[in-house]
Amino acid sequence: MSKIKPKLLKGFRDLMPDEAIIKERFLKTIKKEFEKYGFSPIYTPALEYLNILTGKGGDENEKLMYKFKDNGNRDVGLRYDLTVPLARFVSLHKNDLNMPFKRYHIAPVWRAENPQKGRFREFYQCDCDIVGSNSPLSDSEIIFLIHDTLKALNIDDFQIRINSRVFVDELFKALNLDNDRSKELAILMDKKDKMSNEKFQEKYSEILDNNQKEIFEHYIYGINDFNDMENFVLKYSHSEESKKNIEHFKKVLEITESVKSHIKYDPNIIRGLDYYTGIVFETILKESPQYGAIFSGGRYDGLVGMFSNEDIPAVGASIGISRLISALEERGFFKNTGSTVSDIIIMNMSQNLEPEYIKIAHKLRTEGINTDIYYENAKMKKQFKFAQKMGYKIAIIMGEDEKNKNVVKVKDLDKFEEIECSLEDAIDNAKKILNK
Amino acid sequence: MSKIKPKLLKGFRDLMPDEAIIKERFLKTIKKEFEKYGFSPIYTPALEYLNILTGKGGDENEKLMYKFKDNGNRDVGLRYDLTVPLARFVSLHKNDLNMPFKRYHIAPVWRAENPQKGRFREFYQCDCDIVGSNSPLSDSEIIFLIHDTLKALNIDDFQIRINSRVFVDELFKALNLDNDRSKELAILMDKKDKMSNEKFQEKYSEILDNNQKEIFEHYIYGINDFNDMENFVLKYSHSEESKKNIEHFKKVLEITESVKSHIKYDPNIIRGLDYYTGIVFETILKESPQYGAIFSGGRYDGLVGMFSNEDIPAVGASIGISRLISALEERGFFKNTGSTVSDIIIMNMSQNLEPEYIKIAHKLRTEGINTDIYYENAKMKKQFKFAQKMGYKIAIIMGEDEKNKNVVKVKDLDKFEEIECSLEDAIDNAKKILNK
Repeated sequence: MSKIKPKLLKGFRDLMPDEAIIKERFLKTIKKEFEKYGFSPIYTPALEYLNILTGKGGDENEKLMYKFKDNGNRDVGLRYDLTVPLARFVSLHKNDLNMPFKRYHIAPVWRAENPQKGRFREFYQCDCDIVGSNSPLSDSEIIFLIHDTLKALNIDDFQIRINSRVFVDELFKALNLDNDRSKELAILMDKKDKMSNEKFQEKYSEILDNNQKEIFEHYIYGINDFNDMENFVLKYSHSEESKKNIEHFKKVLEITESVKSHIKYDPNIIRGLDYYTGIVFETILKESPQYGAIFSGGRYDGLVGMFSNEDIPAVGASIGISRLISALEERGFFKNTGSTVSDIIIMNMSQNLEPEYIKIAHKLRTEGINTDIYYENAKMKKQFKFAQKMGYKIAIIMGEDEKNKNVVKVKDLDKFEEIECSLEDAIDNAKKILNK
Repeated sequence: MSKIKPKLLKGFRDLMPDEAIIKERFLKTIKKEFEKYGFSPIYTPALEYLNILTGKGGDENEKLMYKFKDNGNRDVGLRYDLTVPLARFVSLHKNDLNMPFKRYHIAPVWRAENPQKGRFREFYQCDCDIVGSNSPLSDSEIIFLIHDTLKALNIDDFQIRINSRVFVDELFKALNLDNDRSKELAILMDKKDKMSNEKFQEKYSEILDNNQKEIFEHYIYGINDFNDMENFVLKYSHSEESKKNIEHFKKVLEITESVKSHIKYDPNIIRGLDYYTGIVFETILKESPQYGAIFSGGRYDGLVGMFSNEDIPAVGASIGISRLISALEERGFFKNTGSTVSDIIIMNMSQNLEPEYIKIAHKLRTEGINTDIYYENAKMKKQFKFAQKMGYKIAIIMGEDEKNKNVVKVKDLDKFEEIECSLEDAIDNAKKILNK
């Protein structure tokens, strides 16, 4: 039979055990924090009707979707993100959901992008959202969640940059621009960090007249904190709506007072042309800015309305998993993860003793210590080489001699020291070596 | 803007929070057991080249695959199981893997089957496999793993029915049938439990002559334990290979002696026409046989060779997740899981007190207690109705009065009793109610 060449599709990857162990440990920490805040898991299918996935609009997105006709000739696609499926989920099940509805969802999404270093066509998203509340308290909870999650990952140099889309709208109202120009300007603002200041000024000067430039420059260069923004808004608008927006945002700042050292007000945070309608935030690592925004999101009160006659407010955030894992790896958060989840290997000294090895393994496993047994009665050299490559911390050795004396050897594979002791003591000794 | 109708594809489903919480709790238990045995996680892509997925052959499988041409005009498909991707993974990475390689993989697979009650087109598989060992010890470890995993799920009435495909081959050799008739007979044996005994006898009588019938009936009706099988094999074969196979199986029984009350030797376990080459097992619940096999697998030494010049032995098992979860639900394993992961809700008595609520929530969350805050200052009736629907166990109440007295009320929502106490005491009281 001719062999099939094993290969992966372009832009797709496997995770080897060492990488998958890190990912699992990361997700475990994240889930624990999400659940502390009362976010519950849900599952939605990887495949959905194409018109649901593309509903949000944007030809750009549709171009990148994995789409096809299924066996029943339906137009289907692999999900592109987890937010549109959430909106579909809420619309479909709204009679069975209690509002506010807090869910997290950690799952792969697919985009047929040109693969680049660190960018794949299949990648995980990790979202938490509160649907059904527009209170400042719900905005604030997302900020606290970002704060606590990063602290749980031993990160302290993070800065949550916040703004609200309503203030960007105030700017556009003050500029009195038509829709096309507003869009053009918004795109430009969103790309500001990716160009030189000269280039930026050249670009907005093409769009704005002198009066408008003055207003725009006040917004871009003259606002250093939320007080400045309040003055800006109240200078150009006297509407009740504007005052309410100011009050809402002030309330968020008041509630999140205890973590304010991690918050920076930044009028330039816009989060693209997407569906955001209120608060928006991007979290960066001050000591590793090269990873970009690692935990971002905002309020999007219009999205569920795409599928529903009823508009349901929502606010949420999403972790950039691979970026954050890379940053954590660099910082040594995942030290001591080898190619195996096991701490201990029981060496195979004699086939006759295999039932004994099973008993020893059983005792260790019952104590919660992940344990392997070497399955073949191979040469010791081979077994130790394997143990070293895999990264076990301890080898347990019992040959006929030890069996007759009713002892085992516990070998610390880092220090290469061994102790001979009873099986009971061996478990205690192993725990000491492992600090358990 | 016209609304998009929210709907799911036929055969696909969402998991609501109550269902997803159960699934997460289940997977957590499973993963812990798998890791105790030293199985490490891996990830493989959902999409693979179609010729890799169909490699195992079987037009039947290919018909049920979700397959399409991607944007690069490649023939691709959504994975149909986790075993073929494992074989591809091992072949592709064999220079970077230490053997034996023990991995678990929990992930969705897709099959365009006609949906039936409890059968979906997207479902999770949960596999653990040992690749690179053909020792009886590795077969035995899988049996112990099944044993321990089910015990960890509080199941005790399980029976692991074991056999080996080599003994089925011995039967075919003894019958001296051609390939087509062997295949026909194997299909019949595999379907034995799904037909009456009369029908079964009628069917095999069509395939076999009288001499063959005698041998076949000896196998089917005359073998009650492994001793009988040994006698059967040695009656018809004197090859060294047959003796080695007997010894291998005896060794497995010897090693697994301590769990023998859960093992039954059953010559009728065949596991279909798939890729199995050695030991095979199916686990059933004696008190709930209607769920069928809930944890099955076996040895398949030829699969990796599909992609490799080198044959690499492998043995593994797979949990029937949805069946097992249904059985566990029936048995009350998931009692006390409501629509939320949170145990406590902090009621919203006044917007002015929201920063206080955040502080109380923070204290509880730091103690590891999942906690929600009611985000809107709604009427008490509405808040209590929400609390009841969601299934919180405790409500924490602090209005202006309590704030002035520096106390909170801790309300047990099951007993509908409340205590007024300091915040510090409230945390202790909450823990008492939650048994934490």
